[in-house]
Amino acid sequence: MDPEDQALLIKGFSDVELKEVLDELYVDDAVDIVEEMPANVVQRILRAADPQMRREINELLRYPENSAGSLMTTEYVSLREEMTVGDAITRIRRTGVDKETIYTCYVTKNRLLQGLVSVKDLLLAADDSVLIKDIMETNVISVGTLDDQEEVAQMFSKYNFLALPVVDGGGRLVGIITFDDAMDVLEEEATEDMEIMAAMTPSDKTYLRSTPWDLFKHRIPWLMLLMVSATFTGMIISGFEEALAAQVVLTAFIPMLMDTGGNSGSQSSVTIIRALSLGELEFGDLPKVIWNEVRTAVMCGAVLSLACFGKIMLVDHFLLNNPDVTPLVALVVCMALAFTVLVAKVIGCTLPMVAKRLGFDPAVMASPFITTAVDAVSLLVYFFIATSLLNIG
Amino acid sequence: MDPEDQALLIKGFSDVELKEVLDELYVDDAVDIVEEMPANVVQRILRAADPQMRREINELLRYPENSAGSLMTTEYVSLREEMTVGDAITRIRRTGVDKETIYTCYVTKNRLLQGLVSVKDLLLAADDSVLIKDIMETNVISVGTLDDQEEVAQMFSKYNFLALPVVDGGGRLVGIITFDDAMDVLEEEATEDMEIMAAMTPSDKTYLRSTPWDLFKHRIPWLMLLMVSATFTGMIISGFEEALAAQVVLTAFIPMLMDTGGNSGSQSSVTIIRALSLGELEFGDLPKVIWNEVRTAVMCGAVLSLACFGKIMLVDHFLLNNPDVTPLVALVVCMALAFTVLVAKVIGCTLPMVAKRLGFDPAVMASPFITTAVDAVSLLVYFFIATSLLNIG
Repeated sequence: MDPEDQALLIKGFSDVELKEVLDELYVDDAVDIVEEMPANVVQRILRAADPQMRREINELLRYPENSAGSLMTTEYVSLREEMTVGDAITRIRRTGVDKETIYTCYVTKNRLLQGLVSVKDLLLAADDSVLIKDIMETNVISVGTLDDQEEVAQMFSKYNFLALPVVDGGGRLVGIITFDDAMDVLEEEATEDMEIMAAMTPSDKTYLRSTPWDLFKHRIPWLMLLMVSATFTGMIISGFEEALAAQVVLTAFIPMLMDTGGNSGSQSSVTIIRALSLGELEFGDLPKVIWNEVRTAVMCGAVLSLACFGKIMLVDHFLLNNPDVTPLVALVVCMALAFTVLVAKVIGCTLPMVAKRLGFDPAVMASPFITTAVDAVSLLVYFFIATSLLNIG
Repeated sequence: MDPEDQALLIKGFSDVELKEVLDELYVDDAVDIVEEMPANVVQRILRAADPQMRREINELLRYPENSAGSLMTTEYVSLREEMTVGDAITRIRRTGVDKETIYTCYVTKNRLLQGLVSVKDLLLAADDSVLIKDIMETNVISVGTLDDQEEVAQMFSKYNFLALPVVDGGGRLVGIITFDDAMDVLEEEATEDMEIMAAMTPSDKTYLRSTPWDLFKHRIPWLMLLMVSATFTGMIISGFEEALAAQVVLTAFIPMLMDTGGNSGSQSSVTIIRALSLGELEFGDLPKVIWNEVRTAVMCGAVLSLACFGKIMLVDHFLLNNPDVTPLVALVVCMALAFTVLVAKVIGCTLPMVAKRLGFDPAVMASPFITTAVDAVSLLVYFFIATSLLNIG
């Protein structure tokens, strides 16, 4: 069908029929139709599409994925500053039924955003003849069409907005984002951060809708990468094979050192990644963050080392009566442990902030990645201390 | 503002100023402040609050933390079914200025919740003489005062409510929860889940407000517990000391096995924990979940083992020319790897669901806990396969 026939057909449909037709269409077909339509027909199509499809249509038409523009709706109530409260209420009554929200209305002049007024302001106004320009809020917080959806959603949770206006580069109002979409974004972004932190590529599907093949595709890339990068740890151990052959008891403490290092690092990285997501931290805070983590690491390292020394002497030395576990071996293990905690926490807090600064997603720098780095450093330190103190290798 | 700054500020206020500030606050915000204040400041606040607010604060404070009751405000607009639309609008105009939201109004009879009507319905009604009972929505979703705040918040993100009514055991309306409070709860709960999953006890403070001592207190308990539980892994390695002494090369693959097991397990556990949080999964889905994870694990295990075999033969055997790395050793490592992935994924998906069923927070069963369990199993399997195939030990 050619565009004109399509336009004619869509004008002839009732909104309910149109919605039924749209539900049957794939988004890209809908976009093809939309792209060739006169503006008034486009508005009818976007109104009838469900939010998911509207978002995709907007995205494909103009705005990048995850931008404010791709999230917005064009169904807002616009007023003019010379209107009275009575005029405004009449306008809402006439046009409000199709709007995504009527509770915040936007005042424009030549499409430029001038201010906003809430229905509460309208209802509580002294009388119906008050002018909109006398009660409107002119100090309006707005976002740009290309702003990141996560930052926009954070503004909702910070300021408790019902809706936020979206303006183009010239300050012209092009749409609004409502709190329910912002809430969905916050949920999605938290889920995405968790998935990335747990070494998965993010997925849009719910768990029960995912096939094993879907799960496999999202999980294998990082598993593969991390397995290969563990080659370095293996090479470090191979390099100290003679030391280990001389003192096989040292091997028994490798899992404890590696796990404690991994846990210490992920505590720091996850805390920092979440704080970055919530906008509580920025790159300039890095020195303060490192200083915080160093002091925390010293405390954690000291307490863990003492406990570990006690445990090794009590359990391995006396209870299990293992003659290889001497006080000197225990000392080597505990020194390596304290150092591992320190390194893990410094790496754990630094990498996410540097990643963010370089424009990567900080969540990528979470536990699995840091574990691999910390493993290598802690093994090197462990073997270095062991060969120095135990006269082996 | 954080609680300490608030306390400082309130101490600095004169009682008259404090009263003016409190008059500006909505009750549930005042309650948030009161909950986090030292006792002497609380007394000043309760003294300065007008009797009505004091009563409301006390009422809200009686509900358990994290319950819907503790989150609600009593500042809603209530209507009666025999009112007309005109009466309702007049009532909103008269009482609305102090209400947390006027956009959803609740219809009650003898305090029992009968229905709700939105300001949109009122404005779009045919005329002012229409009766509320003819336009009100009687099929109202409500929550109980003792319902968990996380489940309540999930209802907001599912249904896009502006506000939800809270009723007591007898169906009497006692308050409302608004979307902005629900949004805060969703953020807090996601942060809390991430902290618990990364082996920390949850904290209310933002990162930059936390002293190293705060960080230490939230991090050391799990580090200590996990360090001690790593004793088992150490004991397993000690038990196979002779086998390791005969084939030191086996040690080089321990970190890779442990890390891959840990990563595989945390992929499954984090996915399941998040799905449980979002209400996408329940305990009855366990067989389906396990079957999903088993099939995913077989695929991941097969691909990883093949890649690992290739990598060992290519890098360790040929490139590094390590004579100890025979094809048989590579086979042992890869068999152990495939089995570790399988065990990790099954443990990783099962533990969180069982924890939820038993009434614990599933997030506790995340990576660190599962890593320790997976470490032990994978080492046992590794040594068992090694001693069987390599004729050692």
